[in-house]
Amino acid sequence: MNTNTTTHNPDGDVIAELISALGTGAVSTEPAVLREKAHDRSFHGAVPPLAVIRPTSTAEVSSAVAICADHGVPVVPRGSGTGLEGGANTSAQSICLDLSAMDQIVEVAVDDMYACVQAGVMKSALNAELAGHSLAFPVGPGVDASVGGMAATSASGTTAVGHGTLKENVTGLTAVLADGSVMSTGSTTKKTSAGYDLTHLLIGSEGTLGVITEITLRLHPVPEATRMGIWSLPSLGAAADLVVASMRSSLHLARVELLDDATVESLTAYSGYTAPVAHTLMVEFEGSAAEVDAQYQQFTGLAHTFAAVEFASSSEPDESALLWQARHDALPAALALIPGSRAIPTDVCVPISRLPECVLATHEDVLASGLTAPIVGHVGDGNFHVAVLLDPGDDDAEARARNFTARLVDRALAMGGTCTGEHGIGTGKVAALAQEHASSMNAMRAIKSALDPKNIMNPGKVLAHA
Amino acid sequence: MNTNTTTHNPDGDVIAELISALGTGAVSTEPAVLREKAHDRSFHGAVPPLAVIRPTSTAEVSSAVAICADHGVPVVPRGSGTGLEGGANTSAQSICLDLSAMDQIVEVAVDDMYACVQAGVMKSALNAELAGHSLAFPVGPGVDASVGGMAATSASGTTAVGHGTLKENVTGLTAVLADGSVMSTGSTTKKTSAGYDLTHLLIGSEGTLGVITEITLRLHPVPEATRMGIWSLPSLGAAADLVVASMRSSLHLARVELLDDATVESLTAYSGYTAPVAHTLMVEFEGSAAEVDAQYQQFTGLAHTFAAVEFASSSEPDESALLWQARHDALPAALALIPGSRAIPTDVCVPISRLPECVLATHEDVLASGLTAPIVGHVGDGNFHVAVLLDPGDDDAEARARNFTARLVDRALAMGGTCTGEHGIGTGKVAALAQEHASSMNAMRAIKSALDPKNIMNPGKVLAHA
Repeated sequence: MNTNTTTHNPDGDVIAELISALGTGAVSTEPAVLREKAHDRSFHGAVPPLAVIRPTSTAEVSSAVAICADHGVPVVPRGSGTGLEGGANTSAQSICLDLSAMDQIVEVAVDDMYACVQAGVMKSALNAELAGHSLAFPVGPGVDASVGGMAATSASGTTAVGHGTLKENVTGLTAVLADGSVMSTGSTTKKTSAGYDLTHLLIGSEGTLGVITEITLRLHPVPEATRMGIWSLPSLGAAADLVVASMRSSLHLARVELLDDATVESLTAYSGYTAPVAHTLMVEFEGSAAEVDAQYQQFTGLAHTFAAVEFASSSEPDESALLWQARHDALPAALALIPGSRAIPTDVCVPISRLPECVLATHEDVLASGLTAPIVGHVGDGNFHVAVLLDPGDDDAEARARNFTARLVDRALAMGGTCTGEHGIGTGKVAALAQEHASSMNAMRAIKSALDPKNIMNPGKVLAHA
Repeated sequence: MNTNTTTHNPDGDVIAELISALGTGAVSTEPAVLREKAHDRSFHGAVPPLAVIRPTSTAEVSSAVAICADHGVPVVPRGSGTGLEGGANTSAQSICLDLSAMDQIVEVAVDDMYACVQAGVMKSALNAELAGHSLAFPVGPGVDASVGGMAATSASGTTAVGHGTLKENVTGLTAVLADGSVMSTGSTTKKTSAGYDLTHLLIGSEGTLGVITEITLRLHPVPEATRMGIWSLPSLGAAADLVVASMRSSLHLARVELLDDATVESLTAYSGYTAPVAHTLMVEFEGSAAEVDAQYQQFTGLAHTFAAVEFASSSEPDESALLWQARHDALPAALALIPGSRAIPTDVCVPISRLPECVLATHEDVLASGLTAPIVGHVGDGNFHVAVLLDPGDDDAEARARNFTARLVDRALAMGGTCTGEHGIGTGKVAALAQEHASSMNAMRAIKSALDPKNIMNPGKVLAHA
């Protein structure tokens, strides 16, 4: 096992063997299916694969990967396809390993507050199952996504400030390695110090070290009560300062989201959202009813010292969900600013004290670049997204946007930040990763070579081709 | 780099080169120093090393490891020596890399709530520095320990139920790899999805993949208020059930510790502790004063439904610390039961629903084995320790104790548990690790070989010699 070259046997062999192992119904070479499963939601380059296979068990994934390994055919795992950096985009001569049929909730351990699920289980399906137990898995992006895809990307979202990311909420995995062998990592216990932490090595490895087939997740009690509020701030700096002060207090923020004035303006046009056009914080607290009231009162006192003005507040779940909808509408509202536009999403994350500076400099860069690009942020984590809109009538827009995003990464790294808080590397940030982690690229490559000597596991993602 | 054999050049060369690189004062071959630094607090086998070196910087560690690599001489990193599984025990012909002189707090980022410290910084020294900023690093064992050692062991302790383990509280590291190269991992940001999570790979790797020289830690605000309470329970089952009910409620337990009746009895004799001799839970809540009162009131209601009786409660920090002292006295109190005895500490962790069953079966095994072995537990995590006392007058005690601990590991694994919740593998649990993680040992060995092809980084720890 000391070659990094990939050799391709005639296509027919590998497809015939996959059909033999998984059955005809689980292997598709229909052009429409190949095109559909060739890409995620990014518009990074993708070429339809040889075939799309839909295994239903770890054993079938094991068989399929072993066959692909025999043939030196690349394996590109795919969850629900909501990635934003091309992590699931296929290449010519690859096999798309579509995990969406692995949709079984294997175990819900109510008293121990963990669940074991197959990789294709959607977050919404898991939470529907958990609701009957007064438990939830609140972690992950606003968009519905598969648990396997979220783990492979080290995803998070609006709830990370309170409950952490996938990294803090996965205690164990089952994965199929590059030779088809199956390994279990971690534990169903709340903690373990037993050996190398292969669970975290696989989280965020985007299918390049192995295929995650089952995930053990920490569950959280459904809070007795919640209270959310929407607050208008006089400046981005005041918004960030209020967040820092809140994080340093005894407040437990379950969510704290920034919407810049451009985002609020876009929402006004998009959905009739009536909040003042101002830099806005949306916050939420959860716990017992008494605690939530006390926390919200404490936050209100703090907010007033930063000249924040409350626009709305609610303790009613349905009403809160309606108010939160504005946050989830941010991307479509941005796209509606320029009919027919696409958006390049950015994902830098900086220490929160640098957030005002980073956001302001980025906003100035947006204006100087002649781009339309509203900003939203998981501000309690220092993570913000710029939706850089590409005007279909502006041939030069994509080049300007690419230069803008490169400068944004430079700016974040110079502030001690990271090029990606939650979207991952895929193909879109391969160069940015090498820039951010120059000193550890050799170790990453050594691990990749050790676990995938033939370089068949999602090659070209995270790390450039050897 | 494709050999796993370690070759030893004449000792004089390596020591002369180390003196040349680090200076005479940083290299000791004094027999008394060699003996002192040969072992941790376990009594697993250890042989004094060739030399003890005390670097003061990452650059010096890099030079020293490169020299050892040239000579094929094993490097055994050492923090404060409080390990319990032989992780820092030296072998003949090895170099002890004593990191205790790397005691600089490099940065305290107050608004961003992180600190960057050298590996030898003690938890107590860090907290003394943080106190002036109303911040704390509450994570880790009851014993004072170095931050590097805690990270290398994936340590935790009484505060893990509220604040997590070292895994959840380290966001980045600097490490020296087996060839002397220096790598930085992770970020000072609160989250990142940039590439392989080498931070977590090194946490708990016990110096076998690299030497952790600097650590970036998440800090926590000092709570405005705390309230602790000591509660007597009618049975172990009732204690565990109360814990499960508390974890499933909206209570935020900052600590929840179990002391079995044998432990309480030993404390009565040891320190005049006056609580009823009963299975006991010690709990603590933290937050704003109003929140802490509300939480304690809510807990009290729950506790009464499990027939728990309050022995003591305090919101005064000094008084609380005195009450908590009973928990920290558990090991010396146990040792005092048999004059001249030593203790073998165990460290299994199970899903908390299995805790009563596991603790009860373990207690029966203690009695059947003719051992004296009080039990304490970080019960909110399902982690408990049995202090198996070795009576110096009982020649057969150690063999019985070893058999007992092997059965305990079997029992925990059969319940979906882990052989070590927080003490790590060292040399003491090498076989238990292979038993627990049979399916992932090949991957662990592949990673070890990839990052340390000459097998000079703390060889024989975590993984058996190749």
